[in-house]
Amino acid sequence: MTETLLITNAAQVVTMKGHKDKPATKDAMSELDIIENGAVFMENGKIVAVGNDQEICSAYKADHHIDASGKVVTPGLIDPHTHLVHSGTRENEYAMRLKGKTYMEIMEAGGGIHATTRATQAATHEELYEQSKKRLDQFLLHGVTTVEAKSGYGLTLEHELKQLEVVQKLQQEHAVDLISTFMGAHAIPIAEKEKPELFVERVIQEMIPEVAKKKLASFNDVFCERGVFTPEQSRRILEAGKKHGLIPKIHADEIEPYGGAELAASIGAISADHLLKASEQGIKDLAETGVIGVLLPGTAFFLMAEFAEARKMIDAGVAVALSTDANPGSSPTISLPFIMNLGCLKMGMTPEEVLTATTINAAYAIGCADEAGSLEAGKKADITIFNVPNYLTLSYQYGMNHVDTVIKAGKLVVKGGQLQ
Amino acid sequence: MTETLLITNAAQVVTMKGHKDKPATKDAMSELDIIENGAVFMENGKIVAVGNDQEICSAYKADHHIDASGKVVTPGLIDPHTHLVHSGTRENEYAMRLKGKTYMEIMEAGGGIHATTRATQAATHEELYEQSKKRLDQFLLHGVTTVEAKSGYGLTLEHELKQLEVVQKLQQEHAVDLISTFMGAHAIPIAEKEKPELFVERVIQEMIPEVAKKKLASFNDVFCERGVFTPEQSRRILEAGKKHGLIPKIHADEIEPYGGAELAASIGAISADHLLKASEQGIKDLAETGVIGVLLPGTAFFLMAEFAEARKMIDAGVAVALSTDANPGSSPTISLPFIMNLGCLKMGMTPEEVLTATTINAAYAIGCADEAGSLEAGKKADITIFNVPNYLTLSYQYGMNHVDTVIKAGKLVVKGGQLQ
Ligand SMILES: [Zn+2]
Ligand SMILES: [Zn+2]
Repeated sequence: MTETLLITNAAQVVTMKGHKDKPATKDAMSELDIIENGAVFMENGKIVAVGNDQEICSAYKADHHIDASGKVVTPGLIDPHTHLVHSGTRENEYAMRLKGKTYMEIMEAGGGIHATTRATQAATHEELYEQSKKRLDQFLLHGVTTVEAKSGYGLTLEHELKQLEVVQKLQQEHAVDLISTFMGAHAIPIAEKEKPELFVERVIQEMIPEVAKKKLASFNDVFCERGVFTPEQSRRILEAGKKHGLIPKIHADEIEPYGGAELAASIGAISADHLLKASEQGIKDLAETGVIGVLLPGTAFFLMAEFAEARKMIDAGVAVALSTDANPGSSPTISLPFIMNLGCLKMGMTPEEVLTATTINAAYAIGCADEAGSLEAGKKADITIFNVPNYLTLSYQYGMNHVDTVIKAGKLVVKGGQLQ
Repeated sequence: MTETLLITNAAQVVTMKGHKDKPATKDAMSELDIIENGAVFMENGKIVAVGNDQEICSAYKADHHIDASGKVVTPGLIDPHTHLVHSGTRENEYAMRLKGKTYMEIMEAGGGIHATTRATQAATHEELYEQSKKRLDQFLLHGVTTVEAKSGYGLTLEHELKQLEVVQKLQQEHAVDLISTFMGAHAIPIAEKEKPELFVERVIQEMIPEVAKKKLASFNDVFCERGVFTPEQSRRILEAGKKHGLIPKIHADEIEPYGGAELAASIGAISADHLLKASEQGIKDLAETGVIGVLLPGTAFFLMAEFAEARKMIDAGVAVALSTDANPGSSPTISLPFIMNLGCLKMGMTPEEVLTATTINAAYAIGCADEAGSLEAGKKADITIFNVPNYLTLSYQYGMNHVDTVIKAGKLVVKGGQLQ
């Protein structure tokens, strides 16, 4: 049976259309294609038509209507970098940090990434599923309809597979679309601190082939940073993934310039993420090769670090996307709308650019721009309606969640700020 | 008829009790008095008992129950500094600023405080009431049960009275408690730019007596800053208010050290607000005289300025409170929970201190600590319940609104994040 839905009378429909073959760069990042007094018609989970309210309403009849008077309609937001599936929280560690404890003191008190690894290894499939499902509900409430999710707190074949299987199950059962990334090379396990090469080999020989065989991931990510994985090790891990059909991603240049951006460009990564300390050459390389820069300003905000130079990257021609980096250690938020605020207030981006960075460019960063990231005929009907009179207000009324309604694949999943 | 309500089984009840005669300073700002597995019993809008769940539940029977399992109960938050009543928004100005336009260019395009003055003067009583009511609803949804509201966009007797009358009407009709501050000395009207003394005299001779006579305000505030009101003018305005029973407040040292904190201390102000550039001597004076420092980190965040030195002030013995500064020009948010995040991440405060700063100290800053700001027998039953397992998570899961339930004077006004 045909299901039809019509959104009418929106103050603004931000379509993001026209970024067909590649992500938006430079001035194109400001081209939102806004329809004032707009409407969207969808059928069987797909968008059929977007346009002026009068035109759309006279051309199409629908079973259900949503009146978007005084509100702004955008593509469902897309979060292209999260560590969604993990167990436990680390608020105690955060409180220690605020009280001036050092990194070493926190590690000695059992904190840091290994705390999450232990908790995630200890958690059952079901426990991980339940915790992650709650986080996905929160993503929906913040207007996010597609979420990338990485493994990387398992660090053994068994537990990495467990994380990825939870992603797979959530993809089957939750309204939010999930895109899966294998990240066995997220940290070197404590037991192998002295022989990292053995662990690198295990990732390459044991984990990647199995993940690929089970079709549990589309991407392969590595934490390329001094003290974690060197550029050389990162390259080998990413090359190994490519041989098995996993597209490279990279956590690059977060703490110091380490050649991460350059590696991303030379290896043909789809994105380079973090980039707080990316070199001039690295930025140039990303722009020239079309690698998307996924910036995570929440992490800088939460760690009280300097922010990535988004303005410089955009001006240099890098296609920039934004993400929460949702994780229990360095960015325990799921509010992508707040990340947009940080983009404007802390990285020199404009209200137009942050919208591009969380819709069409975010879609390109995780390979789903053919079906999400803009409101165009034929794409999935993933739509967020904000209770603001214009899109500028999303940035202006900062620190607040303005999401009113979310439609996922044509179905009403959030209404009046509440899960349906 | 007696109305009784019982909150049961809270993971934590943060009572804030024990700050009886004066606001919390230094170590006392970390004394939250937390009851694990706690309960609160209230009757006819007042708190009767707070304690361990078993004890309270066996001692008291209630008509209504709220199960706070897994949640944190705090005093209703208090926002001690807002410009609630105004007309219009200024998101275009914000967008211009993000795109690098100068202050002068924005002023020439009709922006700045005078834009809000024009809009507020042009608005009817009813229009102001409706706009402000919506903002108060948002405050409730963010867990705030008492809001200070200033005039200062009227700048003539007629329009200042109009603003204050709207505050008065909201106080009568809205669930949120309002505390009213006259701030005729918010800006010098454009027409009197060349003769500020005439305007100062008008505030003193014409406005203050009338506001006092009509009992429309408890406090008298002045924007003491170079180019606005000098310390000498500010002193005369505040002294004039005192003669009419209006307690002094002051917008002090926001842009440069200008003697504002010193003036607040010497004149016996209840609070000095902003303080981004307060001098060493000014901070010392505030600590010694017990003037509360009301810090507004949202304004620094939104204006991309340096933050006030909260850590230094607390260590020096200043009682610090936090506020949104909600206004259309420099802080268009109403999220006090987000302001708490900024307190931790941008001003060196701890999760305990930001809770003290938005409850009992905020109450002292607007003279209502005898009936609000803590959960103690005899106080108003103003209570916020957050959907977090412990109070640390309010700071840890940043950029999100965790408010689940709000009780105002014993009545359920927000449930499941929705206005009732
Ligand atoms: Zn990450
Ligand atoms: Zn103010």
